[in-house]
Amino acid sequence: MTQERVGATYLVETPYSLEYAAEKIAGEQSTGTFTAVPGETDALKELHGVKVVSVKELEQVQSPSLPGVKLPSNHNGVFYRGEVKVSFPLHNFGPSIPNLLTAVAGNLYELQELSGLRLMDVEIPESFKDVYQGPKFGIKGTRQLTGVEGRPIIGTIIKPSVGLSMEELQKTVMNLALAGLDFIKDDELNANPPYAPLEKKVKAVMESVERAADKTGKKLMYAFNITGDINELRRNHDLVVKAGGNCVMASINSIGITGVAYLNTFSEVPIHGHRNQWGMLTRCPSLGMEFTAYQKLCRLAGVDHIHVNGLNGKFYESNESVVKAIHACTELLLDGYETMPVVSNGQWAGTACATYESTKSVDMMHLAGGGIMAHPDGPAAGFESMKLAWEAAVNGISFEQYAKEHHQLRKAAELFSSKK
Amino acid sequence: MTQERVGATYLVETPYSLEYAAEKIAGEQSTGTFTAVPGETDALKELHGVKVVSVKELEQVQSPSLPGVKLPSNHNGVFYRGEVKVSFPLHNFGPSIPNLLTAVAGNLYELQELSGLRLMDVEIPESFKDVYQGPKFGIKGTRQLTGVEGRPIIGTIIKPSVGLSMEELQKTVMNLALAGLDFIKDDELNANPPYAPLEKKVKAVMESVERAADKTGKKLMYAFNITGDINELRRNHDLVVKAGGNCVMASINSIGITGVAYLNTFSEVPIHGHRNQWGMLTRCPSLGMEFTAYQKLCRLAGVDHIHVNGLNGKFYESNESVVKAIHACTELLLDGYETMPVVSNGQWAGTACATYESTKSVDMMHLAGGGIMAHPDGPAAGFESMKLAWEAAVNGISFEQYAKEHHQLRKAAELFSSKK
Repeated sequence: MTQERVGATYLVETPYSLEYAAEKIAGEQSTGTFTAVPGETDALKELHGVKVVSVKELEQVQSPSLPGVKLPSNHNGVFYRGEVKVSFPLHNFGPSIPNLLTAVAGNLYELQELSGLRLMDVEIPESFKDVYQGPKFGIKGTRQLTGVEGRPIIGTIIKPSVGLSMEELQKTVMNLALAGLDFIKDDELNANPPYAPLEKKVKAVMESVERAADKTGKKLMYAFNITGDINELRRNHDLVVKAGGNCVMASINSIGITGVAYLNTFSEVPIHGHRNQWGMLTRCPSLGMEFTAYQKLCRLAGVDHIHVNGLNGKFYESNESVVKAIHACTELLLDGYETMPVVSNGQWAGTACATYESTKSVDMMHLAGGGIMAHPDGPAAGFESMKLAWEAAVNGISFEQYAKEHHQLRKAAELFSSKK
Repeated sequence: MTQERVGATYLVETPYSLEYAAEKIAGEQSTGTFTAVPGETDALKELHGVKVVSVKELEQVQSPSLPGVKLPSNHNGVFYRGEVKVSFPLHNFGPSIPNLLTAVAGNLYELQELSGLRLMDVEIPESFKDVYQGPKFGIKGTRQLTGVEGRPIIGTIIKPSVGLSMEELQKTVMNLALAGLDFIKDDELNANPPYAPLEKKVKAVMESVERAADKTGKKLMYAFNITGDINELRRNHDLVVKAGGNCVMASINSIGITGVAYLNTFSEVPIHGHRNQWGMLTRCPSLGMEFTAYQKLCRLAGVDHIHVNGLNGKFYESNESVVKAIHACTELLLDGYETMPVVSNGQWAGTACATYESTKSVDMMHLAGGGIMAHPDGPAAGFESMKLAWEAAVNGISFEQYAKEHHQLRKAAELFSSKK
């Protein structure tokens, strides 16, 4: 049997000792049940048991973070927090993302010995490479397809999210394409609705993309939202590719990470991964999953782009956490599997500087919905304001200074600063 | 355009007024972005906007349940809790489970205007029937296949969960089948591991099942864990069916609800839905999802059986919540879509009485791992103890009284009462 192991690190909170909680986690996810059963021999435990690798004490708190905890009879009123690392023999489930999920998460979140549990990180062994090839395009391939180097790929999201007629959509895309944008995506709320079926949408959008490309010499990347039932993914993907489209988008949590892996078995264009519903898995600090763990599984499954939030955005996440997420996407996984982070939500030219200052990276997509489309001088000025802001940031020029020299920046600041 | 709507009810917590939060939710999930964009006309809003149906005030609290909330400038220190119901025009996304998920959950959990958000319920309109046929077997079909009437379908889980050799597994199944059990399932941790590939497992298990059936005249139902990548589901399912197997099990959250719906497009036997990882979505009371909403989507996708927890079990969930979950599974959904609740974890004969008293129902599976397999007199006595306990419960006889007359019950109580 292979000696490869899958590592999993958790933030644990418990009214018991952290060592006891760690053993409970290990037992629950391998050979254990609530009572000894025949066949649970020492040899079997040795070969298949989950091992506790390390237990690191953190702070103590006076009340449980989650409900339903069973207190020890001699409870001293303290809940211990710590970082617990365990490792699973890979041969318990093999290189399989869905079965890895069951192993590292499974029923653990429901244990009454724990008052908090959060999956912080997973370590993926080499064998997964044999099954999952990961992103086919990633950062390099996406740069090649868009022809953008030295700065982020700048794009927008079709707004209003829902309700545009084919004619309005086609006109909007034409305007944006003529404005020179690198990238446009469908909104996650708009995939294949009855009033705007994907087939018609692809046709309408690609006509604008191609006609604009004839004029500008630049063909933008359009991420068509192909989210749907599993049986629809191939048809939807093929519709896009046959029409000359160069990107498909999927809501990762709607089709499942396993759905993404399936899409990646036949996709011919980059997969733009939208992580909506992610807040449900991560916003409670003592439950769920850290993005560090989540994005590894998404990258393994094959997302070429993955949404993170934006700095100074409209969501709850702190800038520090957003920066950590941006970096996480480009850290090597199994010697590769690079994915392009997609910085989005509440973004406009003004957020570019903070993003560069905090990350010192231009390897990302930077998307602004209203921040481009609602620019007082139109989307071309909106796009220009984004490029200018990145230019300023990379060259160490202050936004204010550059805004004095460039009206697109100045007007963006006048409108959007007050909205934030 | 159709006038059908999808309803969604949330538990909301906010430092703003509940009415403001409700409008924020509605805007975020339909036409809105952080600034007005061209094309967002009143007519478009009327046709595609999400409508606030009702806002019901609940209690007020003094601190936010979730981090990252943006306080209003004139904040009075109060966080308002309430039940907010909104409705989506179905034509915004059509009868599609994955796109419904994006609509009703989406980015809402990340809004900084909210300090708590939990999806409590969804209302599914009729059109979904045209796309999703739901459970093909449910309670009635599962009773027909197992030949069990008038009491729960009683079964066990193969333990130890991982590590049994083919010979040990075959022997274990033979013992359990000869003991007369109605049902056995693979553990969720054990699907298709390298040391026990599904193909061999199916062969070994079905030999025991068939040979025992020849002797006892009763063929038990065995739920093979076929959880795997999407591309493997059909192969795995077909392996089971070709070998004469009569049930497949899938970890719902590992293959995704969309993965379940896909499996249901070709499955010929009941789908046993395991909800591991569910705790991650539900244990924080101010985040995630209530089982009422979750099980509707699972049933729509086609699970014939769905795991709930067990009363007096080893997990955090309260008995009251477990009872609510059991009832939820059998409430009509679109005039049908009945699913058999699977009561499991930390179960033994002693928990049968509490289960019947609280539910007054026998329409469930009642699974005991150690509670059957580790019975002092072996699994036949373990199975008998479960049947006797239900017999007592249904006939209004006390467990203690029946235990005096039946040694299988007495011995179970002696061993397991002390373990709980």
